[in-house]
Parts: sequence; C-alpha cells; structure tokens
Amino acid sequence: MNRSSDSANSGRSPLPSDTSPSSFASSPVDPHPTSLHALDEAVQLTALPDAPGQYGGKTHAGYWNMVGPFGGVTAATLLRAVLDHPDLLGEPLSLTVNYAGAVAAGPFSVQATPVRTNRSTQHWTLSILQADADGAPVVTTTATAVTAVRRETWSVGDVPMPAVPAPGEQPAMPRGVGVEWLDRYEMRPVAGAIPRQWDGTGDHSLTQLWMRDAPPRPLDFCALAALADVFFPRVWLRRAQRVPAGTVSITVYFHASSAQLQATGTGYLLGQARGQEFRNGFFDQSAQLWNEAGTMLATSHQIVYYKE
Amino acid sequence: MNRSSDSANSGRSPLPSDTSPSSFASSPVDPHPTSLHALDEAVQLTALPDAPGQYGGKTHAGYWNMVGPFGGVTAATLLRAVLDHPDLLGEPLSLTVNYAGAVAAGPFSVQATPVRTNRSTQHWTLSILQADADGAPVVTTTATAVTAVRRETWSVGDVPMPAVPAPGEQPAMPRGVGVEWLDRYEMRPVAGAIPRQWDGTGDHSLTQLWMRDAPPRPLDFCALAALADVFFPRVWLRRAQRVPAGTVSITVYFHASSAQLQATGTGYLLGQARGQEFRNGFFDQSAQLWNEAGTMLATSHQIVYYKE
Repeated sequence: MNRSSDSANSGRSPLPSDTSPSSFASSPVDPHPTSLHALDEAVQLTALPDAPGQYGGKTHAGYWNMVGPFGGVTAATLLRAVLDHPDLLGEPLSLTVNYAGAVAAGPFSVQATPVRTNRSTQHWTLSILQADADGAPVVTTTATAVTAVRRETWSVGDVPMPAVPAPGEQPAMPRGVGVEWLDRYEMRPVAGAIPRQWDGTGDHSLTQLWMRDAPPRPLDFCALAALADVFFPRVWLRRAQRVPAGTVSITVYFHASSAQLQATGTGYLLGQARGQEFRNGFFDQSAQLWNEAGTMLATSHQIVYYKE
Repeated sequence: MNRSSDSANSGRSPLPSDTSPSSFASSPVDPHPTSLHALDEAVQLTALPDAPGQYGGKTHAGYWNMVGPFGGVTAATLLRAVLDHPDLLGEPLSLTVNYAGAVAAGPFSVQATPVRTNRSTQHWTLSILQADADGAPVVTTTATAVTAVRRETWSVGDVPMPAVPAPGEQPAMPRGVGVEWLDRYEMRPVAGAIPRQWDGTGDHSLTQLWMRDAPPRPLDFCALAALADVFFPRVWLRRAQRVPAGTVSITVYFHASSAQLQATGTGYLLGQARGQEFRNGFFDQSAQLWNEAGTMLATSHQIVYYKE
C-alpha cells in the first residue's frame, strides 16, 4: 500500500473512482520484450564506488502513489540492495520495512549492511536516505532483513490455499483509475473487493484476489515483496468508508526458494489479506500469498495508520 | 522462545521432561514486595553518560534459556531502551527484533536511536552488542521500533477472543522442569499443550493458553512484548516431535494503550499461536494476545528456525 510521511499527515491511499469488477483489463505477455520491465527499472540500483553496500536509485513514475512511491516497490528496492550485495549469503527469509517519511520524486541512496554473518544466516540493516531542501541527508525508510541458506527438511503447509474460482474466471480490476502504480498490477478480486458504495455497511476485512505484475513478469523475490503490499487498506473494507491510510511497517516472511519462484513464472498468485484489530488510528493486516499450484510463497504482516 | 546463534547451530529450545497438565503451580501475589520483580531486574538498563541512547545491561539468570536469554526478555530489554530514552514520542506501536547471535551471560550494551521523529510517529533503530573474546564489539541483536501518539478513532476488533474456559479452570504447567525462564511464567494451557508423547502424531499447530508473569506483575509494554514470545515451537506441536528450534525474527504490534495495560493489571492474558507454513528449516508463527476482558492487546509474528 502507500506509506505516509507522518501518521498525523498521512499520504493518502488511492481512491479509484471506478472499481467496477465488470470492467476487464487484459495483460498479454510481450513476446519480444525490447526493454526492462517497469519493476526492474524501478528497483534498479547503482553501486557507489568505494562505498560497500551503498547504492544510488531513483523513484519511478510508473509506481507513483499519492505522495510517494507505492510502498511495495520501496520494499522491493531495499531487497534489491541486499540481493545485489557482493557479500550476500543465501536467499531472503524475512524483511521488515518501516516507512518513516515520504520518499520524494527523484534520486535516493540505499545503505545495505550485513551486520552479522553466521554459518547459514545473515542479518542486514538497511536504510533509504534523501537530501532535504538544504542538501542534508534525511532517513525516509529503515529496514532489517535476514537471508538464509536453506536445507531440505520435513515440511508442511498448515494453511491450505482457499478453494476459489480460477483466475481466468474472475474479471480484472479496471486500469487507468488515476493511481499510477495500480496500473502495474493485474488484480482479479475473488472476494472482498473495494466497496462499490461507501455507505458504512462493511462487516468484514477479508480480501482474496488473483494478482500478478502487469505486464506479466517472471516472479522473483523483489516482485514477491512488492505483491505482499498490494492490498487496499483493510479499514476501507471493514467500514465501507474511505479514510486516509498508509502503511507504517510491513514484514514479509519468504517461504519459497528462488527455484520455486522460477517455477511460478508469470502465473498468478492468490493473495489473501485480513485485518485483526482496528484501534485508535492503527490496524494490522495479515496476508498470505500462494501460487496457482497452491504453494505458500510468502506470509506478510503490516501495521497501518488510518485517520478518524 | 529462545533464539539461535546460527540457524545451522541453533540454540535449543527448552525440552521439559514433564509437562503434565495435571500438575499445579500456584502464583500468589506477594502482598509486601521488598524487591524488584525479576522482569524489572532483567530489563534494567543504565544510561551511559555522554552517550545518548546508549545503555548498559546484563543478562539475568532467572530468564536463562538453553544457550542464552529467553528471546522475549531480549525483546523487552530493547523496548525498555526506547521507553527510557529522553526523546521518546508516544507509546510503542511496533517492534521487530532479529536474533543475530547468542547473547552470552554477562554485560551487554544497547543502542537506541530515534532516527526520525514526525509529528505523531517516531522511528527507532536498535541493537545489542557484546564484546567478543578479543574485546571487540559484536552485534548480537538488531531491531527497529515505531512509537506513536495515538488518538481516539473509530475502532473495532475483527478477531474476537475465542470462547475458552476461565483461567482458574485450567491447571498450570508445572514449574521446575529445568528451563529457568519457564519458571518466570504461569501458563495454563487451554488447547494445544506441549505433546505428552513425542510419537509423530501431530496434526495441527494451534495453541491457546492463559498466561501471566510469575509472580504476577502489573502488565506493561515490556511484559507484553515478552509474553508475545512464550509459545513453545509450533513445529513441536505440528509434528509431535522435538527438534532444535529458535526464533530468528519476531514482530509485535501493540494495539493497547498504557492505560489499557494498567487496567489489565495482574490479570491473565489469553495467548493464541499458530504456524502457517513449515518449509525447509523455517516456519512462521502468528499470535494474538487478549486480556480477560477480551481486548486484543497485541498481535505478533515470528519466523523460526528448525532443524531436520
């Protein structure tokens, strides 16, 4: 979702003017891609010379939200810095991103530090900085991550994918509703779509939807991190009322290996999100993401500011 | 739970030799306390002069686990540093703690830095360091936290407390099973207790239990953070098999105000924990903590290493 520069002065979440599920947006795979996918452009980083773990990046207009980038792409960018680091051990296991302030349009720097490397786990601290009006660096985002070398062990999924209609049977949400980053995703709601009438009649906060990048792009850890954050604010569904809202902190636990992500390819993910407690300006959201084969790829949690 | 120094060489979780629920351990409130509660001793920090946000602490034998302190008390200690900081804004909203390496018995230092303060939210980075054999500082633990000034808004709990028998109707787990920190808690399992037979017959990972500090202590944010981590490893329940396990990263979202914690006092909390996905050496756990009045005080998530 989006993120706010201050919980008392929140970046507003997208307010699509038309979310009729009867609209349809197709997402053909480009058979002859001639340029980078927008997501790859958005998370692209340049390693700064003589400064290990320091990278330069810039915001991408294609993932713009209301007052800053889509929070999911900010999370993906931080993960990109970990994955680009020459000292990386293993694959992503967990990522926590705290949205401290708005990322302004333009360049930013990312610092990724492996503060401790064990035999099979590695602990990272991360931050995004931008220059303020006086050129002084300001922290916009903090994060921690853990990467791990995983071994095959006894395994079991304890939350089976819900039985839902296939992606092709669900109409896609319309594009071009005026919030740029929404057009970077193909979303096919199964249950708990954005309310069509803001009449205060909401009675639950559970959303299920099929989703993938638009145009389709082979799944990797960065794309998965971003997809964990696509759900519109649970408070809108629970209340059937639009109030300003923005993610304060998100955590993603990665359950899949890169091989499993590759096997998922450009297929859809089923995303499920639900709020547990809405209290005095903040609610939490728990989310699960499965691929079409029913494999749980990631679980995620976030705490979200809302006004009123 | 405990934490591991390395996922490939994990700190082992407690393996009580007798967890018969028919045993009973009473927890009288001391009417004339003459000393600090063990939890207050354990999280006690001394501000270092001329070093803002730097604190000295030491491990507490009463919260010892197998190869280090109980992870919950480490989380509580980090939160203590935030709460002790002279620049603190608001009350705890979220806390993520990454257990990078074992905390050895003895002194440690805590660094708490408010990296960004907004009008109503404040973002913290935290770490625990200890000297290695050569006296060089080593990071044992990293963390981030967000504190917030909260306002009264529309609020609703979307996950009601399950209907369970009252605390007094459930026998307490026995004390003195050989893992010191377990004796600092009164736990009265309702469902999903530690298996009595390790015969591989497990078929779910859901635990519900009434719990509080032992001896009883008025609830505060530090105690709540620690209580979010008392659940034994979900993999033990799911498999009815004991394997080495240790928390890698935990996140706690605080939904209650200090006034609500005060109102909870020394009453029991109902804790509920469940694993979602167990895959190749790591599982996640989601947890909810309500007070006896049915108010959701905190939700929590962790990713946990397991061997085999």
